Amino acid sequence: MKAIFDERQLKHNPEHYFRRGAYIPHPEQPERAILIRDMLIRNGFPVEQPSDYGLEPIKAVHDHGYVEFWKDAFARWQAEAGDAVAIPTYHPGRRRGRKSSSVFGQLGWYATDTSVPLTQNTYEAIYWSAQTAIETASRVAAGDQMAYGLCRPPGHHALSDGANGFCIFNNAAIAAQTLRGKFSKVAVFDIDTHTGNGTMDIFYERADVFMCSVHVDPANYPTYYLGYEDERGEGNGEGATLNLTLQPGATEDQILARFREGVKAIQDFGAEALVISLGFDMAEDDPLSEVGMTGHGFEVMAREIVQMGLPTALIQEGGYLGPSLSNNAEIYLTASRDELAKQKDTQT
Amino acid sequence: MKAIFDERQLKHNPEHYFRRGAYIPHPEQPERAILIRDMLIRNGFPVEQPSDYGLEPIKAVHDHGYVEFWKDAFARWQAEAGDAVAIPTYHPGRRRGRKSSSVFGQLGWYATDTSVPLTQNTYEAIYWSAQTAIETASRVAAGDQMAYGLCRPPGHHALSDGANGFCIFNNAAIAAQTLRGKFSKVAVFDIDTHTGNGTMDIFYERADVFMCSVHVDPANYPTYYLGYEDERGEGNGEGATLNLTLQPGATEDQILARFREGVKAIQDFGAEALVISLGFDMAEDDPLSEVGMTGHGFEVMAREIVQMGLPTALIQEGGYLGPSLSNNAEIYLTASRDELAKQKDTQT
Repeated sequence: MKAIFDERQLKHNPEHYFRRGAYIPHPEQPERAILIRDMLIRNGFPVEQPSDYGLEPIKAVHDHGYVEFWKDAFARWQAEAGDAVAIPTYHPGRRRGRKSSSVFGQLGWYATDTSVPLTQNTYEAIYWSAQTAIETASRVAAGDQMAYGLCRPPGHHALSDGANGFCIFNNAAIAAQTLRGKFSKVAVFDIDTHTGNGTMDIFYERADVFMCSVHVDPANYPTYYLGYEDERGEGNGEGATLNLTLQPGATEDQILARFREGVKAIQDFGAEALVISLGFDMAEDDPLSEVGMTGHGFEVMAREIVQMGLPTALIQEGGYLGPSLSNNAEIYLTASRDELAKQKDTQT
Repeated sequence: MKAIFDERQLKHNPEHYFRRGAYIPHPEQPERAILIRDMLIRNGFPVEQPSDYGLEPIKAVHDHGYVEFWKDAFARWQAEAGDAVAIPTYHPGRRRGRKSSSVFGQLGWYATDTSVPLTQNTYEAIYWSAQTAIETASRVAAGDQMAYGLCRPPGHHALSDGANGFCIFNNAAIAAQTLRGKFSKVAVFDIDTHTGNGTMDIFYERADVFMCSVHVDPANYPTYYLGYEDERGEGNGEGATLNLTLQPGATEDQILARFREGVKAIQDFGAEALVISLGFDMAEDDPLSEVGMTGHGFEVMAREIVQMGLPTALIQEGGYLGPSLSNNAEIYLTASRDELAKQKDTQT
């Protein structure tokens, strides 16, 4: 199994963010990707760079004005404000408004929260994070049974036209759309501990991409506003969204039970290919975790996903700087590789 | 002319707020109201306390869930987070979402920006600011030709269900609705330098309240998303909204020309009573100003508003701690009193 990574993804370096009334250290650090990259190399995974596929695959799932905005947003901000970091102050209400021509207005129009600080090289990082996702999905479309995209910053909270929860470009949605070029029915299975609200938003009215997310109930957990169990898709997409929520304190067994509901739903949908939004922040020692996952649980998930037998793009989402991040990534990816090898043996 | 004020309005004391990527001193300080109150006393204006009219007049213009939320929002926040100040991190997107049951989710649902820090006594202050507006309008409804409500915090940016731009309860809208109990056609005339976006939002689909606002073009000025000239109302309210925008650097003559367009439109509407959203932040030395108003211009406005001959509730909005704040308030209010006396002499 190959891994895809581009060093330019490390260039987004938000030192702090504004959360709950205080300016605090930002958990979404480049170090996350460095730890996983080094683990990949130690374990003999080939780590390859993505090609440059341009903006078209990104615009295939995002609002075009939204995508264009990020290209020079920081330069415009700095020209106007001189600050070293751009974070929105104002946002529109839910009924009316237009984005305004000011970069200050536009940032609040296109970013739904204060958690995505925009710095000098953020655009380069999100661009290459998206290219990593496209490359990963392209390898799978070209015949690899599984490939791993070490995407960073993560993407699954990003709405079609709204940055949210550390995310700007929705890498998993971009990967799913890329897979749609080859496969007629694709599923996204999001096992990050947070709602896959952005991916859900993007595919909510589509029947061709099934979106299933296992996560802590957003009633009391970021990013709050989407990912409830009664949200099942709309219009053509009615029934093609499945949110499986966990309560804080959920045990590994409870998590795995919900995970298996997701596996079954994806099989029932008849998915021909799969994107895994792979977060490690369900780990019991993850700084953002409220549930009790261990390495054992990640291994079970990894093996059962391979056993689904679907061409699969693994897209890295969350998982923060707790003691087990690198270890859980290692368990997940080596178990996947091992299970893939077993499957291959069985087939031959 | 009487003034209404309640000392409890001073209890909202936001030391800082999060703006454009930095935590900076908050310009909406209790000192603003203290300066104006002391000026009122020096100039012999009777300063009276409002009665307690309860929440019904507030709910008459705001979403009920929104009004109820603020009552214990800070206590809930403190119980969950322990912080001394509550500012939203996350907000919903523009298409989908629900408010969640978490106070963190709800604050971002009901506050559109980071400019309204919620502290221990914020609710008490906004409650009495609204009561001051109701009392002011009630005096006018009862026969006073003009009364002045020293409301603070200000209100005109507050949407029906969204705190915005230092504002939570929309005092001017509450006053206008109170006047509607007596008069069938009421106008709000907003001469604060910022868009009266909240008041506009509240009355946007109503024909019985004409909303006119003179302000710096929101394309490049807070709070950005509403207050454009082509926004003229909708449905029954079609034509009952008028936004008269200024460009940064506008001179006093240019401001007064737009002001007079507003006077004419209000007369054409056939208003029977008037609410003035009275900001002093067009002053050339106001820290937030981008236009060139002087005391002379405020005197002209004050006299011409009295000359409209309408029962009028003056509701204090912005105007920040620049050198002329108290002086401009003095000029405006003493000119109004003088002009009212002249009118009375003419009538007798």
